[in-house]
Amino acid sequence: MITLHHCVSARSFRPLWLLEEIGAPYELVMHAFPPRVRDEAFLEINPLGTVPALFDGQVGMTESAAICQYLAGRHPEAGLAVAQDDPAYGDYLNFLHFGEATLTFPQTLVLRYGRFEPEERRLPQVVEDYSRWFLSRLRSLEPRLEREAFLCAGRFTAADVSVGYALLLASFIGLDERFKPAVAAYWQRLQAREAFQRAKAAECDAALAQGVPPQPAMEMG
Amino acid sequence: MITLHHCVSARSFRPLWLLEEIGAPYELVMHAFPPRVRDEAFLEINPLGTVPALFDGQVGMTESAAICQYLAGRHPEAGLAVAQDDPAYGDYLNFLHFGEATLTFPQTLVLRYGRFEPEERRLPQVVEDYSRWFLSRLRSLEPRLEREAFLCAGRFTAADVSVGYALLLASFIGLDERFKPAVAAYWQRLQAREAFQRAKAAECDAALAQGVPPQPAMEMG
Repeated sequence: MITLHHCVSARSFRPLWLLEEIGAPYELVMHAFPPRVRDEAFLEINPLGTVPALFDGQVGMTESAAICQYLAGRHPEAGLAVAQDDPAYGDYLNFLHFGEATLTFPQTLVLRYGRFEPEERRLPQVVEDYSRWFLSRLRSLEPRLEREAFLCAGRFTAADVSVGYALLLASFIGLDERFKPAVAAYWQRLQAREAFQRAKAAECDAALAQGVPPQPAMEMG
Repeated sequence: MITLHHCVSARSFRPLWLLEEIGAPYELVMHAFPPRVRDEAFLEINPLGTVPALFDGQVGMTESAAICQYLAGRHPEAGLAVAQDDPAYGDYLNFLHFGEATLTFPQTLVLRYGRFEPEERRLPQVVEDYSRWFLSRLRSLEPRLEREAFLCAGRFTAADVSVGYALLLASFIGLDERFKPAVAAYWQRLQAREAFQRAKAAECDAALAQGVPPQPAMEMG
């Protein structure tokens, strides 16, 4: 049985969404955000104090995009992985990383220095610098998504979950108002997926059942 | 023939190092840093304006850690990949991502707001926040590297190239003075590799031959 440690709408939404796409059974353990600060016992589970933390037998992982590739690869029947000998393999790996390193990290700066830090430590310059950074990198997807419904291999893959989470985060921050048309339409397609909606419902139900605030941290700041 | 676009000591050092580990032939195209600003023609090669940009036939990639996994997987004879059915596969993927998303991005903030931005836009608070972030995340490797010579699978893999580049960057910034003993010893082991040294020589030779400053951008700021 897979165990996933999660905070509502945090990066751990990636593996949650992917588990729903696969249809694999899992246990969802909810934490208040940020878990490092709100629950010291969690440091024994994951010394980094971050989510996701996923356990699958002897395997423990903390990087959300890596977990997506891992789960997709271990469940080939779900058709969410791209094989090493497929011409789209390079694109697949590239977008798995691009979704996190290039599209998500900049947004965490926008959140940190725009909402999470106490007033006297907020830095509008960083918020502006990394909003622009995010939007300029995001624009690079526009030509591809004008031609294709998904990022690579002509179908929905784990790479779409990686990039899709970055778009979810952008929608909480309000940066989705600045999406170009093809990215905006892609984001609508992703949200319309049943597994996406099941993942949203699962985190809300689990938060209520486990006594954790059900709204995303980004909306509490 | 593989073509790699590179700036001295930038993230594109990861694929360069990996190519030297594999022993695969490649063409190295040097750019002054940052290529987005210094060479507008480069935007036609890579619209993101970033390095690395790697081309292998029809495949084009821009994410350095993804390229490491791609090249390691395409050259199994080099023994730098971990197979999907190997118990270490989860660790392998996790460290490939960890090296970039968790250990490298924070350092780019230290560089940007500590050195690259004009004086009036520098932000010592961000430099301090993300120096601490980097060092706290790096500490999580210490117990593992007290037991093991490399990150996973009991041998050197592409994951060590991903994390190794983060240590190289830290050494330019001066954060290596704060490495704990096991990480410091690991960093020595990585630098002692012949392929690492060949990669350092290759970028210096190519920079001189192509009329690009041979010193790292981090030392020019």
